[in-house]
Amino acid sequence: MPRLRALLGVGVLSGAVYACPLAAESTHDAWLRYAPIERTAREKYASFPAAVVVLGDSPTLGTAQRELIRGARGMLEKTLRAKKELPREKAIVLGTIVSIQALVPGFSARSSLGEEGFWLTTENLRGFQCLIVTATTDRGVLYGVFALLSKIAQIADLSDLNEVQQPYAPLRWVDQWDNLDGGIERGYGGRSIFFEDGKVLTDLTPVREYARLLASIGINGCAINNVNADPRLLEEDFLPQLARVADAFREWGIRIAVSIDLSSPKVIGRLDTFDPLDPRLTQWWRKKVDSIYRRIPDFGGFVVKADSEGRPGPSTYGRTPADAANVIARALKPHGGVVFYRAFVYDHHLNWQDPKSDRARAAYDIFHPLDGKFDDNVIIQIKHGPIDFQVREPVSPLFGGLQHTNVAMELQITQEYTGQQRHLCSLPSMWREVLDFNFQLDRDGASVKDIVSGKTFHRPMGGFVGVANVGMDESWLGHPLAMANLYGFGRLAWNPDLSPRAIADEWTRLTFGNDPAVVSTLSEMQVDSWTVYESYTGPLGLQTLTDILGSHYGPGVESSERNGWGQWHHADHDGVGMDRTVATGTGYVGQYPPPIAKLYESLQCTPDELLLFFHHAPYTHVLKSGTTVIQHIYDSHYEGAERAADNVHHWKLLRGRIDEQRYSDILARLQYQAGHAIVWRDAVCNWFFRASGIPDAHHRVGNYPDRLEAEAMQLQGYSIVNVVPWENASGGKAIECVQPRRCTASFRFARNAGWYDIDVVYFDQNNGVSSFQVFVGDQVVDEWMANDTLPATKIGGDSSTRRRIRGLALRPGDDIRIAGIPDREEHAPLDYVEIHAPLE
Amino acid sequence: MPRLRALLGVGVLSGAVYACPLAAESTHDAWLRYAPIERTAREKYASFPAAVVVLGDSPTLGTAQRELIRGARGMLEKTLRAKKELPREKAIVLGTIVSIQALVPGFSARSSLGEEGFWLTTENLRGFQCLIVTATTDRGVLYGVFALLSKIAQIADLSDLNEVQQPYAPLRWVDQWDNLDGGIERGYGGRSIFFEDGKVLTDLTPVREYARLLASIGINGCAINNVNADPRLLEEDFLPQLARVADAFREWGIRIAVSIDLSSPKVIGRLDTFDPLDPRLTQWWRKKVDSIYRRIPDFGGFVVKADSEGRPGPSTYGRTPADAANVIARALKPHGGVVFYRAFVYDHHLNWQDPKSDRARAAYDIFHPLDGKFDDNVIIQIKHGPIDFQVREPVSPLFGGLQHTNVAMELQITQEYTGQQRHLCSLPSMWREVLDFNFQLDRDGASVKDIVSGKTFHRPMGGFVGVANVGMDESWLGHPLAMANLYGFGRLAWNPDLSPRAIADEWTRLTFGNDPAVVSTLSEMQVDSWTVYESYTGPLGLQTLTDILGSHYGPGVESSERNGWGQWHHADHDGVGMDRTVATGTGYVGQYPPPIAKLYESLQCTPDELLLFFHHAPYTHVLKSGTTVIQHIYDSHYEGAERAADNVHHWKLLRGRIDEQRYSDILARLQYQAGHAIVWRDAVCNWFFRASGIPDAHHRVGNYPDRLEAEAMQLQGYSIVNVVPWENASGGKAIECVQPRRCTASFRFARNAGWYDIDVVYFDQNNGVSSFQVFVGDQVVDEWMANDTLPATKIGGDSSTRRRIRGLALRPGDDIRIAGIPDREEHAPLDYVEIHAPLE
Repeated sequence: MPRLRALLGVGVLSGAVYACPLAAESTHDAWLRYAPIERTAREKYASFPAAVVVLGDSPTLGTAQRELIRGARGMLEKTLRAKKELPREKAIVLGTIVSIQALVPGFSARSSLGEEGFWLTTENLRGFQCLIVTATTDRGVLYGVFALLSKIAQIADLSDLNEVQQPYAPLRWVDQWDNLDGGIERGYGGRSIFFEDGKVLTDLTPVREYARLLASIGINGCAINNVNADPRLLEEDFLPQLARVADAFREWGIRIAVSIDLSSPKVIGRLDTFDPLDPRLTQWWRKKVDSIYRRIPDFGGFVVKADSEGRPGPSTYGRTPADAANVIARALKPHGGVVFYRAFVYDHHLNWQDPKSDRARAAYDIFHPLDGKFDDNVIIQIKHGPIDFQVREPVSPLFGGLQHTNVAMELQITQEYTGQQRHLCSLPSMWREVLDFNFQLDRDGASVKDIVSGKTFHRPMGGFVGVANVGMDESWLGHPLAMANLYGFGRLAWNPDLSPRAIADEWTRLTFGNDPAVVSTLSEMQVDSWTVYESYTGPLGLQTLTDILGSHYGPGVESSERNGWGQWHHADHDGVGMDRTVATGTGYVGQYPPPIAKLYESLQCTPDELLLFFHHAPYTHVLKSGTTVIQHIYDSHYEGAERAADNVHHWKLLRGRIDEQRYSDILARLQYQAGHAIVWRDAVCNWFFRASGIPDAHHRVGNYPDRLEAEAMQLQGYSIVNVVPWENASGGKAIECVQPRRCTASFRFARNAGWYDIDVVYFDQNNGVSSFQVFVGDQVVDEWMANDTLPATKIGGDSSTRRRIRGLALRPGDDIRIAGIPDREEHAPLDYVEIHAPLE
Repeated sequence: MPRLRALLGVGVLSGAVYACPLAAESTHDAWLRYAPIERTAREKYASFPAAVVVLGDSPTLGTAQRELIRGARGMLEKTLRAKKELPREKAIVLGTIVSIQALVPGFSARSSLGEEGFWLTTENLRGFQCLIVTATTDRGVLYGVFALLSKIAQIADLSDLNEVQQPYAPLRWVDQWDNLDGGIERGYGGRSIFFEDGKVLTDLTPVREYARLLASIGINGCAINNVNADPRLLEEDFLPQLARVADAFREWGIRIAVSIDLSSPKVIGRLDTFDPLDPRLTQWWRKKVDSIYRRIPDFGGFVVKADSEGRPGPSTYGRTPADAANVIARALKPHGGVVFYRAFVYDHHLNWQDPKSDRARAAYDIFHPLDGKFDDNVIIQIKHGPIDFQVREPVSPLFGGLQHTNVAMELQITQEYTGQQRHLCSLPSMWREVLDFNFQLDRDGASVKDIVSGKTFHRPMGGFVGVANVGMDESWLGHPLAMANLYGFGRLAWNPDLSPRAIADEWTRLTFGNDPAVVSTLSEMQVDSWTVYESYTGPLGLQTLTDILGSHYGPGVESSERNGWGQWHHADHDGVGMDRTVATGTGYVGQYPPPIAKLYESLQCTPDELLLFFHHAPYTHVLKSGTTVIQHIYDSHYEGAERAADNVHHWKLLRGRIDEQRYSDILARLQYQAGHAIVWRDAVCNWFFRASGIPDAHHRVGNYPDRLEAEAMQLQGYSIVNVVPWENASGGKAIECVQPRRCTASFRFARNAGWYDIDVVYFDQNNGVSSFQVFVGDQVVDEWMANDTLPATKIGGDSSTRRRIRGLALRPGDDIRIAGIPDREEHAPLDYVEIHAPLE
């Protein structure tokens, strides 16, 4: 289509005129598919107006009109008449309140709309009953159009429409951690849509498509580059490229920002310092900012990561974050720009032997003393928890500690610690809990959602920043279901009172249609998926027990210990957890207001799901649930892995109700997840079993009656290797084929005759494509290539992968043999085999 | 998968072990998808044996066992145990009668199985109730396995199975008209799967996949190259390449043949003649044939097209086809090979001014006198009608005229004259009529099916040859639905008593599953589609009124007239049709046996659907149906176009019941066909209206109240051009944009306000990609590129294409404008616009 547009020389066409798609159902349009609604449901819209009038000629209003036409064309298979003036017939009228008042004096909304809210209503205009989409601003009208289209896609009744919506918070941004070379830090959806080879891409079609998705959920800004920022972005000859990106976003009412390196004046300017209090800095930034705004008049501002994980910052000169933020904020102020200053500042060389060391304290310790010292166009961007997007953290106390400072909450849509889009983990469930958390200050409305939106402390600015990291992947995030997190982020930023279930329902209807079986199955899977993921990766507030020094993906229970990064859980022979109490621990609890501090200070009162974040508890400590800590760790992992397996069952019931391509793509991911959940389960359970010495009351941990270790098989060519860390492979060992030819591992089946499923657990590294074959006797019953691109160059918890061979008839005495052919650095590695009665 | 097989070095694996496919529903597996059957239906097979025993070790039996395992794995999600000996459990037993008798003395079929028949039954073997697939030969067992798998796919009950099937005729071949350069004469499914650049392809995976499809419907031979044969194929250094193709077919029990050029001994040999009676010829062919059989022991033989359309033949030396055939046949005889000698021999420089000239006579005139002169391993390959695969022809009289000669019927699966896979035209309906035609000889069983299968005249050989012309296209024939013709050909060759409806049902279930709505809709569409196509392209025995000098695709009413090719219909001012009677015409009718000749000799008795093939009738002649010839021509075309449009409606009701990819692909084809049927309708009706001067009683022909000619619009840049022949464009004119910039054509809408569909009829050539935009006022309501690859380099009936713009709200006074941007030789050509109330 871009090519056609170029040919026709009509750049403003937008997608309004796509005709019958020939392709299969695509995941690229995400929740804006505008698929034809069922014929029976279409009668509901039989009297839908045929004309859509836009009152005004701003680009944003034009976008709104085209989008409405596109949506109606897709869903109702009708092309509405695009009008600039009221026709002599009923119409959908798009325009600001003021522009409608020019037609109908006295027209006014029943309640305030604010700057970005909208009102959907019906009104008799010049004798015709019209459907009105109105707002204070053009952008509000655009949001109203998306709301109207969403209603149609969900087959809502539009008669007697009278609805006002307003966003909860003024700042609703996404950040992208894209590098100029086209990579994306913690991105799992392919290459950057903005950059490649140090330049902005020539074809920005994906950027425009992304902007449309963002606008549809009310996002109004996007910071386009990695917070570990490349200073080149601010060089004069780069600015025209930035301007092109801003142009692509602008038609959808979205401003761009860029992440900056505070040392830029020194690195790319000609100064010998970047001391924020040096007057030359003031001038340098003013000049730079003025230059940007000449090209991008609606430029949003800067994102700053400083004095964190090796980034330069004001501490170099003994200055504070406020000093650094304000000098830049003052340059932006005349243009209406802002600075997002990240509170993610901590020392990653902490002394792990000091029982008072606590990374969780850092943000509060650093920023609370500066409260009130930041200019009014500075926003402190605070991760929702005190650590770093773990599967479960308490709410950051800093939200209660900045009462005279603008704040925004940073949430992570890209699933860095929550399964990297390979595991289904629906985050709105987590976010909604965070947003509802109440700081119990001595005033009304001290919930997190009220604080970050600026209501509690009457701040002029505040809101939400979601780290999205979409990429060139067809489905944007690498997993079609992961887009529910981007959708949910936008919806919660607009209205944090929406329930996770309502959001999941909406998203499923928009993405997969209104089949009740699909909607209920998929919504339930989503809503539950966060706690499922938590239960096999880090229950009781242990955080994500992953390899924190590398991939942040598979299990790595001990990787957080005994190093300066401070994500400790301090497990030892007797117990586990970080004592963060005031009385005996790091004192972190004292950063919360007294009622909350009192709760967390007590081992008995702290909720089970955060217990080990706040306390070092004996394994034998009895939880509120009545079970011990150690037994809960076991139970939780087994239950989580079972629930991950259940999702495969549930999904299979939807076969035929979903297009084959998305059905099979998602099925494969759910099957992978079910297998990897067992890798997690076994790694964590065995590690804690060894640490605690306390057996599982249900005799599961360490007992795998259906399992046969590869190292116990008859090996030809294969060698036995130790896996590090040991808990990431069954029995701590695996086998590798280090010869260039094929190797085999075999064993004799000794159970009763019957139908069985065989699980083969192997390691799929990204630096080779081994091949496997499984034989029963002389019969090849399965073969596959280990060609996934998991974040792993070695055997272990990141690469461990399950192949399930279903429906095998096995007989006592059968010789079962696995042949592996190595490739490059991947040595056809195998962990174990498990034989079950048929499962799925 | 081929790559994996290569890696593993296990060439015999076949596809038995494909695991969960990640791709969308593919059309490549055609009717052998083996998709999982519905869970509820699966209970039916709960007691299906877990083992499959093959008694014997021939490659064909191995193929049968692997295929059964593959099918069960796909449909039942179970991997059967591949056994070589009877296990101590119930099993499916594959083996010849003799091999089973070795286990169960006295075991014998209830009726004769012949060489290729099979028997599906149950039998207690050594204490276990087994499911037996048996036959006289290994190939029969393979056919039985496919029959068993087809039953499972259709969820048939397998309890008390006891079924014998035998093929009706011994020869069931397909021909491919592939050229060594990779092109396929009259192929519409992409490049050759055999050849490219003068060589056999390195990767013959598609050949093996094709062989599997063919074997599943009982095809036992394939001639792999164009009948207009390249002599290089017989060169010694080419034979190893042929052997590779034969190897690929062999595992599926299929022999190959090649088409030969009779002048080969002169062209590639060192002889100075190819006179069949020259003794050096005998020797040359013997040597050549011996050489082939050294490499291909099961080589099938040769196909000969000679003295036809410029091909060299025995007439060069005054010899007969029998002379030519027999010399080659004698070389093949010791090896069991055969010669298919095509009866498609005619003079294409006929004198069209001679009322006695008649191409239809040629085959009978030439071959009937030679009856009894052909050796026993020669088969005369006769097209089903006397002309050339027209949409309707009488049965060739030669079938009754060769009582002492082997014959085979040549049918065309590739839709050369029946829509080239762009129009749905299901041919089993036509073929079944031909097969049931009875020659009314003074003996029992003189139906065509009995004659060609050798039963009537007790011939040792006989059968069916289908010209398939599959190619590299994902769906083999270029249209997913066209594969029903390949399937139907095989099924009728196996059992000509199957009804077209039963075949369509079977194919639909195997290809799309067992949803009753899908099965009934798609089966009905198929069964009707031949007469639908006939009704708008050549009713009353006019043959296909296409451009016979070029594409054989779009309308070209007059192209057959006044040239030597002899496909005349002799339309003039008073009437139309070829007088082929004995009394006053060419005498062709006299080639039929007396009872049939009597029928066709009479204007009154000849069936309406063949009337104009046999008679020159006045336009005012009243048909048996009560209407006149001319009115029938009009009515038939209008009804046919309407029925083509109905298919779009019917198909749309299946949305959601078929995977999105195949749904939308087929929808696009049906929509195209509905548009092109109107091009046909208008061309033929207007041509006959002008010829006859008799208006349509229903005032449709020449009256298009909803139509606006492009040449009548306000033009900017566009020029008016005459279309040749005139009837292939509305009003005989079109407009072209011969300037390099864009041109526009516009008009004012003057009808009542309402919802409308606009059809834009343009020309889509294959030598340029023009772009079009349609505006209502300033609003772009549609845009597209003319990027199809129709067989046309100019405007006319082949390229005429409809774009339907649906659901437009139009108001009186609207300015409607079409902008076209030309590209290379395609000048954004437009024919007309039609505006309707919404239709689909």
